[in-house]
Amino acid sequence: MTMMELRSFAAGKWVDAGDSARDIHSAVTGALIGRAGGSLDFAAMLDHGRGTGSPALRAMTFHQRAAALKALALYLSERKDRLYELSLHAGSTRGDAMIDVDGGIGTLFALASKARRTLPDDVVMADGDLEILSRDGSFLGHHIYTPRQGVAVHINAFNFPVWGMLEKLGPTLLGGMSAIVKPATATAYITEACFQMMVKSGAFPEGSFQLITGGTGDLLDRLGPSDFVSFTGSADTALMLRSNKNLMARSVPFIAEQDSLNASVLGPDVTADAPEFALFVKEVVREMTAKAGQKCTAIRRIIAPQTMVDAVIEAVSAKLAKTTIGDPAVEGVRMGALASASQKKDVLEKAAIIGSEAERVFGTDTPELQGEGVEDGAFVSPMLFHCADPDAAVKVHETEAFGPVSTIMPYRDLDHAVGLMNRGQGSLVASLITHDPRVARTVAVGAAAWHGRIYINDRDSMKSATGHGSPLPLLVHGGPGRAGGGEELGGMRGVKHYMQRTAIQGSPDMIAAIIGQYVPGAAKTEATAHPFTKTFDDLRIGESITAGPRTITREDVEHFAEFTGDNFYAHMDEEAAKASPFFDGRVAHGYLLLAFAAGLFVQPDPGPTLANTGLSGLRFTKPVYFGEAISVSLTVKEKRPTGKDYGEVLWDVAITDGEGEQVAGYTLHTMNALNAT
Amino acid sequence: MTMMELRSFAAGKWVDAGDSARDIHSAVTGALIGRAGGSLDFAAMLDHGRGTGSPALRAMTFHQRAAALKALALYLSERKDRLYELSLHAGSTRGDAMIDVDGGIGTLFALASKARRTLPDDVVMADGDLEILSRDGSFLGHHIYTPRQGVAVHINAFNFPVWGMLEKLGPTLLGGMSAIVKPATATAYITEACFQMMVKSGAFPEGSFQLITGGTGDLLDRLGPSDFVSFTGSADTALMLRSNKNLMARSVPFIAEQDSLNASVLGPDVTADAPEFALFVKEVVREMTAKAGQKCTAIRRIIAPQTMVDAVIEAVSAKLAKTTIGDPAVEGVRMGALASASQKKDVLEKAAIIGSEAERVFGTDTPELQGEGVEDGAFVSPMLFHCADPDAAVKVHETEAFGPVSTIMPYRDLDHAVGLMNRGQGSLVASLITHDPRVARTVAVGAAAWHGRIYINDRDSMKSATGHGSPLPLLVHGGPGRAGGGEELGGMRGVKHYMQRTAIQGSPDMIAAIIGQYVPGAAKTEATAHPFTKTFDDLRIGESITAGPRTITREDVEHFAEFTGDNFYAHMDEEAAKASPFFDGRVAHGYLLLAFAAGLFVQPDPGPTLANTGLSGLRFTKPVYFGEAISVSLTVKEKRPTGKDYGEVLWDVAITDGEGEQVAGYTLHTMNALNAT
Repeated sequence: MTMMELRSFAAGKWVDAGDSARDIHSAVTGALIGRAGGSLDFAAMLDHGRGTGSPALRAMTFHQRAAALKALALYLSERKDRLYELSLHAGSTRGDAMIDVDGGIGTLFALASKARRTLPDDVVMADGDLEILSRDGSFLGHHIYTPRQGVAVHINAFNFPVWGMLEKLGPTLLGGMSAIVKPATATAYITEACFQMMVKSGAFPEGSFQLITGGTGDLLDRLGPSDFVSFTGSADTALMLRSNKNLMARSVPFIAEQDSLNASVLGPDVTADAPEFALFVKEVVREMTAKAGQKCTAIRRIIAPQTMVDAVIEAVSAKLAKTTIGDPAVEGVRMGALASASQKKDVLEKAAIIGSEAERVFGTDTPELQGEGVEDGAFVSPMLFHCADPDAAVKVHETEAFGPVSTIMPYRDLDHAVGLMNRGQGSLVASLITHDPRVARTVAVGAAAWHGRIYINDRDSMKSATGHGSPLPLLVHGGPGRAGGGEELGGMRGVKHYMQRTAIQGSPDMIAAIIGQYVPGAAKTEATAHPFTKTFDDLRIGESITAGPRTITREDVEHFAEFTGDNFYAHMDEEAAKASPFFDGRVAHGYLLLAFAAGLFVQPDPGPTLANTGLSGLRFTKPVYFGEAISVSLTVKEKRPTGKDYGEVLWDVAITDGEGEQVAGYTLHTMNALNAT
Repeated sequence: MTMMELRSFAAGKWVDAGDSARDIHSAVTGALIGRAGGSLDFAAMLDHGRGTGSPALRAMTFHQRAAALKALALYLSERKDRLYELSLHAGSTRGDAMIDVDGGIGTLFALASKARRTLPDDVVMADGDLEILSRDGSFLGHHIYTPRQGVAVHINAFNFPVWGMLEKLGPTLLGGMSAIVKPATATAYITEACFQMMVKSGAFPEGSFQLITGGTGDLLDRLGPSDFVSFTGSADTALMLRSNKNLMARSVPFIAEQDSLNASVLGPDVTADAPEFALFVKEVVREMTAKAGQKCTAIRRIIAPQTMVDAVIEAVSAKLAKTTIGDPAVEGVRMGALASASQKKDVLEKAAIIGSEAERVFGTDTPELQGEGVEDGAFVSPMLFHCADPDAAVKVHETEAFGPVSTIMPYRDLDHAVGLMNRGQGSLVASLITHDPRVARTVAVGAAAWHGRIYINDRDSMKSATGHGSPLPLLVHGGPGRAGGGEELGGMRGVKHYMQRTAIQGSPDMIAAIIGQYVPGAAKTEATAHPFTKTFDDLRIGESITAGPRTITREDVEHFAEFTGDNFYAHMDEEAAKASPFFDGRVAHGYLLLAFAAGLFVQPDPGPTLANTGLSGLRFTKPVYFGEAISVSLTVKEKRPTGKDYGEVLWDVAITDGEGEQVAGYTLHTMNALNAT
């Protein structure tokens, strides 16, 4: 093959590797296949990101950013064969490459979809609830997220050259920040190929992302308080980077996802003939062998009841024995190579450390390999160790052999199992195979604080479960302590890392103007035409009508009770109603109030208001007795485009009594047609 | 007065200061008034917190912790005169002391109340929404918060010896962590007095809080991944502490609240005769002089339109001239002393630095002082500087003189004002006095990313506004960059810092067991008696009944339309309904479905189900045409004690059609009586 000369993408231009480039070797054959490096102008890159990319992203609404992300995902999706092909050099089977490539693209799709459904079509995101800061409601508080006005630096690991880039980039771009991506050298050719596609796609404005395939030089020394660093890799590198004085002095956020001794626990309820036993063995073997164990989330510690350890060893070993190893381009190969010769050396060294406290019960130093010219490839055999005394052991709880290496250890009871799980001192994920919800609760309460994700599986979910080792775009990924203390993804949670949360305080008008929603007490505009006759586009926030009054009679209530069958005592039994702590006598049905209110404000003619799709936050705040008259106000609160030819309108509805006091309040949801185009 | 010998409270015992104690002087007279110090067994303190205090707190539910916090607040509230008295030695006026003491106690009340209303009566807190991870709903995801299983170390500043302790302690204890409190030496006698009360109150279990009045020795070197450090103080100290290798190597979370060059902007819309002008001047003067300017949130930079600068200087100076300075025990004194002689020295040095770029337009080196024996007290005059060229200036944007010192600077237009605000490189709070909501929106979008809080005030909110400088328990406090990058308070947001967020995955039964709520797909228990006949105590999560079917006829719909007045086209106009993108013909009213469903499931007799108080999350998911029959299931989803003799029950309600497909789903809220006691 021809040598791959990797370039960087800096300040809008592709830059060649230059003289000082580092060699890259095939994981399968050990042959030299490429070079990466070169010197870049980091000041210019930061200027480009801060001055061009980030402002352009900030000018886009969340919906526009989501649409761009979806377009990017579609573009990559049509070109992914090229990435599978390149992944063979990294020792990845097709299955391994799909985890990386399809996993990365799927993450973009999922985040784009979630953003469109849950974020406003605006540049400001409101957080949490309105806080009433004065008795009369004239001073309010709220929280907002706005994009950090700097550049995000992403330093990624070698094991997921595509997913590792995209799972960070998706939330960053959605959050309105531009990014500088630095992939690990060993597999940077896959990242660079993907990056070329990203640039060509034109999905995002200039400056939205830049690429460094060489070293990062003094980049971190140049970062400021509005910038951000997200790192994935070893604990040693993380420590070196986060110790940077400039980062600390300027409070530059640094999140890390690093080493993790992930555990999988076989529940005390599981017998050898239960479906959960086979499931446990299957998950363990998959996590040991997928990507040749080079996943931060792979199972490193297998924790089983004392009585089940032998059975697990036997079953896992039997499955491992069937794992064909070799050149992933060869038909039938189930496990490929580690990413590089140095990784192989490291894995064997770590396995030896584990071997000082545990006995190797499966594995060989000389695995049989499929393929030609693979003698110098970075292949290792899967290795299963058995640690009989995990309480006395230290190394097995802290040594991460980043390959197909795992250690099984016994537990006495569930508390002991939880204690062993937590001895990892912080992990990305722990799994539990149990059919007993009480076991799940006990483990969650005891162990959740030490783990970023707890994965539970049993016969009921085994067909649909997503796998111990799979970070999902809608769930957080990261973990405390040894795992780095960081957090990524988790749907819109991960987007917020790239934004600043700010409390805002002011009068209702000020809060409404900032968050782009009507809030109680803010100015309303009396609508000139009925707002149901207006399109989604034409409706304005704060546009309002009032309707009523309508008197609610005893006959209304009795008729409603008879018609619907709702004879609840509060409406029908004067004595009992009087005796309750809530009422002074019979009251109108809440649903009668809703129905009469709708009768008052509805515009019956066909028009742009297409359907009532629901309501939220309904509270009945004051009882309505017979003879009282209700009025209702209907105010446009918020507009949410759906991407279809109609949009969702949220209406603030307040039902008041004759004294002007609110008896019920809620948010009504309708779908309204857009303007004809 | 007698010398105060401050003690520490370590591992359940009061420990004397010992020989190596440091002297403490009166801020007012300079006289020696106390000593603090002593050597402590930090390993034993950590063991006590991790092994006794934190487990006891974790065993309590959020509601129990909130009740304890309220009891503590009540206990302190009855004893606060002693704290006012001691605060005089620190140079604090009664008003200053109330900010500290009442502010601290009020924070506990507010957090306790918010926790009871919004957190479950459980040890696990669910976060966000359920995520459906498989098409058939048999594999779900959720997020939970559980307490970090270590100790929180709080290192506090001298300016708020009570509030500074309680604003950190409240969220920590609510989150289920024990704390070790280290106050600044200069005012530690006030903290220690308050701490004595806290211990005597017996409100919290043994080991919940410990106190270090001397140095922290090697405490930070002993912390692990489950511990936590929260610091308030100078940027230099913060950098020194956060550089600790052990903290970094073990990913111990460290949040800091440090220097801040808070700005206040006079809006471009404000004329000299507008109410906002006087308001601006009032807020500026209050922030300069309250606590003698020793508030992290005080206004350091006054940003006004070029044309208004002279008027502001004149008005602010006139008010400052009326500020009586001296011994706070003397009647009529409006501004007391700085906390110590070393603070006075520091403030004068910093003022000199500011003076190199700005002209002092108000202030004197020899202020007139009220009181006896105050010659050696730490008094300074308020000082107003004018910086005519804030673009060229550097020092005024980065030099925090932690006293009654502020600099006024002009802006050309709103973009320029935003740029000047952001030159603080990260602050705790910025304020904006404007009557124009568009100005508020522009400033929020442009500046929020650089500030932890944006406070807007005008004629509409001036009577009820809480003040530029007041952090509130329900709003976040902290800021990016120079302000430390940390975040505290914010209602339950601050509590979550002391907990770990963990993604959980599993079958509906597993998720339900962990979060203590029914989720769709989880096992239901067919109720033997109607659940409306059961008390709050007796109802079990997952207890369920189904009712129906009831056929919905054209007559029902037409009758409902006539009765309520809701003649919306979708119910009454076959042609128009067919033409809509949502319907194939006339459909039943959503509120008719709700009412009929209630008619099906309601148990009419008086009983423990007292009232329907609302509903939430109603979605109409499938239209119901004439002749279709609906059924309904009612399932206990969640129980929320209210602290009264009834509790709130949340019910999952699913209305299905003849094909078993859901047509509407929502959560019903009722109040149910507790068991008679």
